[in-house]
Amino acid sequence: MIYLDNNATTRIAPPVLDAMQPYLSEHYGNPSSAHSLGRKMKAAVEHSRQQVAELIGAADVSEVVFTSCGSESDNWAIGGFLEQNPTRRHIITTRVEHEAVRNLCEHLAQIGCEVTWLDVDGKGELNLDDLRKALRSDTGIVSVMLANNETGVLFPIAEIGRIIRENSDALFHVDGVQAVGKLPIDLKNLEVDLFALSGHKFHAPQGIGALYVRNGVKLPPFIIGGAQEHGRRAGTSAVPNIVGLGAACELARISDQHEEIERLRDKLEAEILKRVPNARVNGLTTPGKRLPNTTNISFEYVEGENILLYLDREGICVSTGAACH
Amino acid sequence: MIYLDNNATTRIAPPVLDAMQPYLSEHYGNPSSAHSLGRKMKAAVEHSRQQVAELIGAADVSEVVFTSCGSESDNWAIGGFLEQNPTRRHIITTRVEHEAVRNLCEHLAQIGCEVTWLDVDGKGELNLDDLRKALRSDTGIVSVMLANNETGVLFPIAEIGRIIRENSDALFHVDGVQAVGKLPIDLKNLEVDLFALSGHKFHAPQGIGALYVRNGVKLPPFIIGGAQEHGRRAGTSAVPNIVGLGAACELARISDQHEEIERLRDKLEAEILKRVPNARVNGLTTPGKRLPNTTNISFEYVEGENILLYLDREGICVSTGAACH
Repeated sequence: MIYLDNNATTRIAPPVLDAMQPYLSEHYGNPSSAHSLGRKMKAAVEHSRQQVAELIGAADVSEVVFTSCGSESDNWAIGGFLEQNPTRRHIITTRVEHEAVRNLCEHLAQIGCEVTWLDVDGKGELNLDDLRKALRSDTGIVSVMLANNETGVLFPIAEIGRIIRENSDALFHVDGVQAVGKLPIDLKNLEVDLFALSGHKFHAPQGIGALYVRNGVKLPPFIIGGAQEHGRRAGTSAVPNIVGLGAACELARISDQHEEIERLRDKLEAEILKRVPNARVNGLTTPGKRLPNTTNISFEYVEGENILLYLDREGICVSTGAACH
Repeated sequence: MIYLDNNATTRIAPPVLDAMQPYLSEHYGNPSSAHSLGRKMKAAVEHSRQQVAELIGAADVSEVVFTSCGSESDNWAIGGFLEQNPTRRHIITTRVEHEAVRNLCEHLAQIGCEVTWLDVDGKGELNLDDLRKALRSDTGIVSVMLANNETGVLFPIAEIGRIIRENSDALFHVDGVQAVGKLPIDLKNLEVDLFALSGHKFHAPQGIGALYVRNGVKLPPFIIGGAQEHGRRAGTSAVPNIVGLGAACELARISDQHEEIERLRDKLEAEILKRVPNARVNGLTTPGKRLPNTTNISFEYVEGENILLYLDREGICVSTGAACH
């Protein structure tokens, strides 16, 4: 089998599974329990939080809050801000966000928020003047993804953050789900307030994500109940998954495979363009403006679904777009 | 080590881990992907849904929706109902619910809902006349746990459901988190509309739960985004955890250990009462009105925290209450 669907989900890396195994068997306490087994679990959770903080360059480990997935992180960031700040109901986002942001914003528009949708051009790029003009005094939050999940195109988060800071009081939420683990991220040096990530996009298990919440930013809990995550996210901590996320962050932080992956991707694209008539690579902008692992190719006159099924028969797994829809 | 903290969390049962292992390694697709690996994942998720439906006696497998934990299920049931029915803002619940219900209802009371809190007596039992009197035309939802998480005392869900149906249009949500896997449940023969469960309470992993949503009951999604769970809960399905939950349901359904566990629990209590002066078992009501696995004992004149620490030194894990606080 040739698995080319890593933007949908990845295999758990063997070292990640090795790190998880003890917590799937003999280490099974509740991190909120006071006995020694519980305290061991708590230590494992905090170690993992440190590993996540290091990968994304959080200034403080307490800025990392574990969630169940990237969609939860995105929903919490935007919905939580609006719950906390009910008078700042103007949102700015793009038309190419993941559905966890796009569908949420569509829903919020239906219940009284005003949403400005930024367009992208043929190369998949934003016009930052559009953003500048859209910012208003009642703009509460701006949500822009770091890397597009279907084309891999990167948005200039550093510049967008500066524009927001210089022109408004809005918070800046970044959906980093598709980018984390694939390029270096240093949040302490970016004007980013909230940042979502998801483990299964970079070789941790499904069912674990995190939201970076910059110190000083207040969000009401997404799930109300126990005091887990310092009261910011109730529900018993999923220790095996949290340990897996930490291990995957460690692995991504020391990985030196990105250049090799990019070289292979570029070779694949070049060969396809050479051999297949009417093929077109989407999001092919200047080098370095795209995730190293992602390719999005259109074949004119052929249905994507048919290509997918033919490739599947040959043991090659691809998707025609985001898996979620 | 003697682990007596199974109401906080349980060890993953070896057959459950065995069922999960392939999905932690070679079976790693996204169930929403169209290729054959994705379809295999989808089949595994649906098989697990069937196993959950069978354990709780759901009339239809589509009534089971996977969530990340019991707290999410509880929050979704109550919060979702109120979002869908904003004019029916009267809630009835008890003072002894898990915090995922109690703290949520306290929060809802602060933002405009009216909450009637039912008391329990010295035996931990509800007065059903109190419930009857509390039901009003604007009562939207009644939330009562099936088994108390600290004492194991069972509430008469069948009778409570009948009282609600006969006297109101309110929905009935049951927090079944502490009870599932420990006693037979047959929801199709109960007047229950919503029912929360959590895997890690009965030997599935942490980080997976479900909400039973009776056919015909409409809830807006708790997480908005992709079309997972038929649009009722966005976020990539956590396949290994879902498979683990299904296997744990299967294991619980065929288990014949409950009587033996109850016998051992009763023996432990009898010996403690015989040997330790000033010990008192809480929630010791008529036989069959308490979970078979739970004991809650007070030792007068001694701090619970101290007992916990002394027992911990002897390798015995207990808790002084719910682990969450």
